[in-house]
Amino acid sequence: MAVPGKTSRRAGIADVARLAGVSIGTASKALNDRGQLRDETRARVQAAAEQLGFIPSSVATSLLTGRTFTVGLIMTDHHGRFSLPILHGAEDALGWAETLAFVCDTRDDPIREQHYVRSLLSRRVDGIIVAGRRAEARPPLVLQRAPVPVVYAFARSADDADCSVVTDEAGGAVMAIDHLVRTGRRRIAHVTGPHGHASAIARVAGVHESLAAAGLSLVGEPWYGGWSEVWGRFAAAALTREHPDVDAVFCGSDTIARGVADGLREAGRRVPEDVAIVGVDNWAPVAEECRPPLTSVDLNLREVGHRAGRLLLQAIESGHTPGVHAVPCQLVVRASSAPA
Amino acid sequence: MAVPGKTSRRAGIADVARLAGVSIGTASKALNDRGQLRDETRARVQAAAEQLGFIPSSVATSLLTGRTFTVGLIMTDHHGRFSLPILHGAEDALGWAETLAFVCDTRDDPIREQHYVRSLLSRRVDGIIVAGRRAEARPPLVLQRAPVPVVYAFARSADDADCSVVTDEAGGAVMAIDHLVRTGRRRIAHVTGPHGHASAIARVAGVHESLAAAGLSLVGEPWYGGWSEVWGRFAAAALTREHPDVDAVFCGSDTIARGVADGLREAGRRVPEDVAIVGVDNWAPVAEECRPPLTSVDLNLREVGHRAGRLLLQAIESGHTPGVHAVPCQLVVRASSAPA
Repeated sequence: MAVPGKTSRRAGIADVARLAGVSIGTASKALNDRGQLRDETRARVQAAAEQLGFIPSSVATSLLTGRTFTVGLIMTDHHGRFSLPILHGAEDALGWAETLAFVCDTRDDPIREQHYVRSLLSRRVDGIIVAGRRAEARPPLVLQRAPVPVVYAFARSADDADCSVVTDEAGGAVMAIDHLVRTGRRRIAHVTGPHGHASAIARVAGVHESLAAAGLSLVGEPWYGGWSEVWGRFAAAALTREHPDVDAVFCGSDTIARGVADGLREAGRRVPEDVAIVGVDNWAPVAEECRPPLTSVDLNLREVGHRAGRLLLQAIESGHTPGVHAVPCQLVVRASSAPA
Repeated sequence: MAVPGKTSRRAGIADVARLAGVSIGTASKALNDRGQLRDETRARVQAAAEQLGFIPSSVATSLLTGRTFTVGLIMTDHHGRFSLPILHGAEDALGWAETLAFVCDTRDDPIREQHYVRSLLSRRVDGIIVAGRRAEARPPLVLQRAPVPVVYAFARSADDADCSVVTDEAGGAVMAIDHLVRTGRRRIAHVTGPHGHASAIARVAGVHESLAAAGLSLVGEPWYGGWSEVWGRFAAAALTREHPDVDAVFCGSDTIARGVADGLREAGRRVPEDVAIVGVDNWAPVAEECRPPLTSVDLNLREVGHRAGRLLLQAIESGHTPGVHAVPCQLVVRASSAPA
């Protein structure tokens, strides 16, 4: 469709009223579903609006409510893995385009973040969601005293007076271990990301807790390394040498798990017959292409985004809910953990 | 940071003027860098604004210019692979938060798209970018006569009077083949996605053109299948049986290429010593984890987004530029295509 020329302009409410043969006040009542009007009048105005392609301005709504029905979504992501499901969940909570989100990608740059915050505040957003891509706590936004509610999603705020929605990382690890134990595995190892990473720490705690509850203990120490396939392959090779009787590996990410699957196969182990594997992230491009397809702990990021959106609306409408809200994970079972 | 209580409110320009001991008019001049003022006065007003956390409202700017300095970015994506680089490029073009983008993910649902379009128009966006995730042409947005410029990114509009920015898919295939020929490969096969897919068709044309220019022809027919690793593995196994002298495979996507790399290794071929591989997408999670790391045609989606953003600003400010604007691809060389 070509852009109409300068003579074209949007139809206004006066045009609608003229076409329907009513006053502007009546047209406004009909279009906003207010006041006492005959059904026939309301229908005539709506038909006129339809015919002219009249779109009500959100400015009027803003003046009435003091809200702009816009929020900011500040994110930082390289591959969309974390931020897209959070955006989808937030969109669902914000109600099918009733409230729209300005999306700003700070690319891990604090100056860019500050710039975007100022820009969002100058547009009078009703609130801001900050979506992180790591489980580590992050410093609160610098809001320059603007009374705008903020909800942190995935990466919680370091200030406990803020409202944060996170995934229950330790609970996800418990789910993975419980699944392996219930399906008959007893010699379980754990290969994960860097030493000191908040997600790795939380998951290791869940692993130990859950194994202890089953009267088992971890095969060797946790294998700390990186979130990469190459680390998974290295770890699998070393693990089968050091602990030839290992019958399951819980991995801190799907990427690691994919490397472990290849490494085990190349060490002559069958997955899942000899060794079961469970990953974390349930990221389709990795989990579904793994050989065999990977059982994985889904971090439920869409639900994190949805909860963040709901809490933000609640903060805008009625009240702020401080504290850290944890969303449970969910286990997605595929072939890599079928019982031996 | 806790949200301030009801008594808190944003500082207005009157508060800034009072604190600086100047009139509201003077404060406005100082903050908007207009009019004749002494440097000392300007500095005093700016210090007061800083102290009070004063943020100018964008509403005033909109009233002056007739623009809202907002655009819509309509996308549809499952994994962020296509839309995130387009968002990044558009953000860069829209100028560091000067113009903010409402991002709406339609999830391939035309009803949702129409809903978002209405919502964007009611917010008086200055323009809309529509980012597709396939190279196929898509129907134009239904704009209900609203005179808002639209630029289509990656998936072009089916209406040639619209403005679309696409990648030069055939040119990307030419780059891949030229690279393989220049590095000594002569027996080149092509494994790609589904028969009839626009990207597959465009790339096959580029492959034939570029091989013919080098006095070569394709080894066998193009292998059409799916955009998956499993298809790449199947194709590699069949290809080495049918054409044991193949010395290079150009693949229609990185995912296929990764499957081909595994399939060739499992068929006893060394990559790149015996067979070189080039993929398309340069999607880091796949290309970098491939064994060996994958040479790949980058679709330059960030540049597509940047160009779309620039063309949209141009359409808003001065004039619409109809037609299809093609952005060249770029070859990223990694180990999988090292000369034999």
